[in-house]
Amino acid sequence: MEQQPQASAIRRKIFALFSEETRDKGFPKYFNYFIMTLILVNVVTMILETVKVIYEPYHTYFHAFELFVIAVFTCEYIMRILTADLAFPCGNRLKSILKYMFSFYGLIDLLAILPFYMPFTKLDLRIVRTLRLLRFLRLFKITRYNNSMELIKSVMSEKRSELGVTCFVIIIVMIIASFLMFYAENAAQPDHFPNVLACIWWSIVTLTTVGYGDVFPVTGIGRFIGGVIAFLGIGLVALPTGIISAGFLEKLNEKNKEEKKESDTEKHDEHKCHKQYCPYCGHKLDE
Amino acid sequence: MEQQPQASAIRRKIFALFSEETRDKGFPKYFNYFIMTLILVNVVTMILETVKVIYEPYHTYFHAFELFVIAVFTCEYIMRILTADLAFPCGNRLKSILKYMFSFYGLIDLLAILPFYMPFTKLDLRIVRTLRLLRFLRLFKITRYNNSMELIKSVMSEKRSELGVTCFVIIIVMIIASFLMFYAENAAQPDHFPNVLACIWWSIVTLTTVGYGDVFPVTGIGRFIGGVIAFLGIGLVALPTGIISAGFLEKLNEKNKEEKKESDTEKHDEHKCHKQYCPYCGHKLDE
Amino acid sequence: MEQQPQASAIRRKIFALFSEETRDKGFPKYFNYFIMTLILVNVVTMILETVKVIYEPYHTYFHAFELFVIAVFTCEYIMRILTADLAFPCGNRLKSILKYMFSFYGLIDLLAILPFYMPFTKLDLRIVRTLRLLRFLRLFKITRYNNSMELIKSVMSEKRSELGVTCFVIIIVMIIASFLMFYAENAAQPDHFPNVLACIWWSIVTLTTVGYGDVFPVTGIGRFIGGVIAFLGIGLVALPTGIISAGFLEKLNEKNKEEKKESDTEKHDEHKCHKQYCPYCGHKLDE
Amino acid sequence: MEQQPQASAIRRKIFALFSEETRDKGFPKYFNYFIMTLILVNVVTMILETVKVIYEPYHTYFHAFELFVIAVFTCEYIMRILTADLAFPCGNRLKSILKYMFSFYGLIDLLAILPFYMPFTKLDLRIVRTLRLLRFLRLFKITRYNNSMELIKSVMSEKRSELGVTCFVIIIVMIIASFLMFYAENAAQPDHFPNVLACIWWSIVTLTTVGYGDVFPVTGIGRFIGGVIAFLGIGLVALPTGIISAGFLEKLNEKNKEEKKESDTEKHDEHKCHKQYCPYCGHKLDE
Repeated sequence: MEQQPQASAIRRKIFALFSEETRDKGFPKYFNYFIMTLILVNVVTMILETVKVIYEPYHTYFHAFELFVIAVFTCEYIMRILTADLAFPCGNRLKSILKYMFSFYGLIDLLAILPFYMPFTKLDLRIVRTLRLLRFLRLFKITRYNNSMELIKSVMSEKRSELGVTCFVIIIVMIIASFLMFYAENAAQPDHFPNVLACIWWSIVTLTTVGYGDVFPVTGIGRFIGGVIAFLGIGLVALPTGIISAGFLEKLNEKNKEEKKESDTEKHDEHKCHKQYCPYCGHKLDE
Repeated sequence: MEQQPQASAIRRKIFALFSEETRDKGFPKYFNYFIMTLILVNVVTMILETVKVIYEPYHTYFHAFELFVIAVFTCEYIMRILTADLAFPCGNRLKSILKYMFSFYGLIDLLAILPFYMPFTKLDLRIVRTLRLLRFLRLFKITRYNNSMELIKSVMSEKRSELGVTCFVIIIVMIIASFLMFYAENAAQPDHFPNVLACIWWSIVTLTTVGYGDVFPVTGIGRFIGGVIAFLGIGLVALPTGIISAGFLEKLNEKNKEEKKESDTEKHDEHKCHKQYCPYCGHKLDE
Repeated sequence: MEQQPQASAIRRKIFALFSEETRDKGFPKYFNYFIMTLILVNVVTMILETVKVIYEPYHTYFHAFELFVIAVFTCEYIMRILTADLAFPCGNRLKSILKYMFSFYGLIDLLAILPFYMPFTKLDLRIVRTLRLLRFLRLFKITRYNNSMELIKSVMSEKRSELGVTCFVIIIVMIIASFLMFYAENAAQPDHFPNVLACIWWSIVTLTTVGYGDVFPVTGIGRFIGGVIAFLGIGLVALPTGIISAGFLEKLNEKNKEEKKESDTEKHDEHKCHKQYCPYCGHKLDE
Repeated sequence: MEQQPQASAIRRKIFALFSEETRDKGFPKYFNYFIMTLILVNVVTMILETVKVIYEPYHTYFHAFELFVIAVFTCEYIMRILTADLAFPCGNRLKSILKYMFSFYGLIDLLAILPFYMPFTKLDLRIVRTLRLLRFLRLFKITRYNNSMELIKSVMSEKRSELGVTCFVIIIVMIIASFLMFYAENAAQPDHFPNVLACIWWSIVTLTTVGYGDVFPVTGIGRFIGGVIAFLGIGLVALPTGIISAGFLEKLNEKNKEEKKESDTEKHDEHKCHKQYCPYCGHKLDE
């Protein structure tokens, strides 16, 4: 029992690195800057690793940096587990640790380092390589510090239902258009429109107005359908934009209303101060 | 007359599958989930049927599933007709049935199963194949359950007139641009711009900013016209988006106004209750 | 002087075909429907005239229809000139005619028929052919009847200044991007980026997100500049859309304000009716 | 000390050319029109200089015009330095000059003429050529006179944070998409997707819906990822548009509020004037 407070003191110091109250000044600030820089640099090295002319002559450096990154991130993960009961206080320490491990950022932290330790378990290496992409989720950690994201998130979640309906309508339009296109173009371009799945690819590319130009209609009827779909693509942009615009303004109106209510309450209070005089006629009132 | 109430009891049970009040719980709920899943799976099989490498080895399974789907949908259609007088009550039963059959969803239900029964009538099979696309309208049935669509629908219908004018202006711009392009590019690229119809295809692809790259201007004057049209394409996105945004906010304002009116009425009522006291100074008033 | 009132009676009948008060019912209505249909059909024939496989076997029919259209539009133009003093009343008849002839629609009416009479004046025929495009301006006549366009027009004209500044900034960005692209890509692709003018074409195609794919950067630095320009293209859509959205909502707010003012005035009037009682305390007031 | 006021009189005359109070009428107005026209014409000549068929036969004229432009802009720059203490009054003249030289427009004015004087310093000429692009910054001078830009600027700067978060999310999505695409398409198209950097180029072209068509997925999984990214591209347009729309309307609401406040204050003042009469019942009040 004597040892506990001492360990707790060290653990408290470690927790200060992650706690929202303390991490913005002094050593915890520099520690967090270091972690974030490491994440960013690691993303850049991961991109450069795929460029052969850069990777091949310097692959030892890349490998060394990779080891360093994994070491730091593993340390960070262990430190977070050690201080989980401070971050997620709930009496039982094991419960706190599990709470952290299965929280959104806990899972990211784990998956960011896991692929490195996987090869020893004799798993197929290709799967590990794709799992490494999850390391990019580290990037989301940076947003953890960003409050502005909350507004966008709340607008998106409030307008979830309208955006969902828009998506649903778009998918129906897309499928119908794909079938029509298949019947219109299959005979003329069996290579480009071999089946409805290929037509769905064309539909997406056209509806989103990307228009790579790898597949496009050549028959009269196909071009007519294509033109209609392209115009619907404009609506595809207009509808969610209108919904999101309205969402941001609703948030604004709500804020204004609250402010007004507050100022009204203030006015009311003001009235109370001068309660002996009627605010309208200005003459003294009976208490 | 004795048999009627009994039949009616069975029919009422069937109607419970479709009635909005009962279909959200118990057996009707599972029945509707089953129908919706069947529609979805059927859409997927219809897409896969066009992929030769999938269809050819499994075409018997596809055919069996098709028969099963048609059987279920035919049963559903018959059940809906049998209970039409409960869904569309209007005294005369035949009138109720016709009302259902010619309602929007009644027509979809019929057209979804009709193509299958058509071959026996010795009609051209190609027409039947295109008619099968109408089966996709079944998908719209899912939206029948979705209330969020109403808001989008009402915004679109209220802004109908402005969106229509925008479309009209766009079509005029498109036709003028097509003629200008024809005179500018026909001499330089007789293959890509052989006539004004081909130029209209170019106009649509450019105005909607799809830009496949199958046809594009190469002469100086053609590129100038193309650039102007491309910029107008931006306006083509901006105008309907602005109109739809305003539509969503109008709906929001209307809702707010109604709420305010209600709260004002409440306030008024409150005043009435305390009519013997001035709402501002609080002292007793002379009646 | 005796003849004047009689002529005026005929002219008044002709004017009834064009006057806004009378043209919506009876014979003038059918006359206007006929003219509008003729304009529409004529646009279609002009498009089909450029399709060789359609034009060549039927060119006599096309020519006959052209003569008929010119005859009708010439008659209409003469009738409008004859009744100009009724449409533009200003004392002097010649002044009224000139006023009509140089009004927006007067010029369109003239230019729609002028190209046909031009060949006899021994002018270069190629110029006449391009002038024929002006006949499309006839289409704008249809909008003359459409009131919904006014809202869009007023929003566009009120936001003229902001939209203008946006255009200005876009043009500067476009020119700077074109120069940067010229220095970045000229050496690698002298055929696609031979000079800054060609780079401006690339800039427009990228900024408007059309992206034909006829010219695109291949060097690293060129792709970097291209990526930045493509992202600015998103802003190019976002800014005017935001401006136009705000414009539509301003119009809506103005309307709401006026309605509120009116209802406030009504309230005030109501108060006047009950002037003998204070609206707040309810006790009788001294006159 | 005697000479100072005389010099100051000349300098004051020069300063009148640049001062915001005086430059809108008389000689300063024409001087500013001349400078702006020169900037515009110079931009056009710089573009035409890169077109070989135009530049080569007339290069002496281009060179002469270049000398003239540099002479005028150098004069203007010297005049601005001479009158810097009037434009940036702060006691010390040298400090004023430095203030001007390091102001945004001061740097533009300098960089616009600097490349011409650089060759004499034996620097690498290629660097000078790219520096010449900075001359385009002159164009920004025109906006100096434009007040409408302020609204757009203030909206953009107020919504800086939300737009920044949107950019951040887009960049993360872009990088993840690039890695996924690399694993999906690298084996099938090693030429088009050789490394993640090339995939980032594809991501930008797709997310911004430009879609040149130089690189596009061909495998099933690649097309699926491509389709998702293309749909996210729609959101990429919708989000900033919604944010900017809301920004413009916030500005509008603020203006309306201020106006309302002012009118309320006026009402209040009115009340004060008639304080002896109740504003509601109109009868004389007790002081």
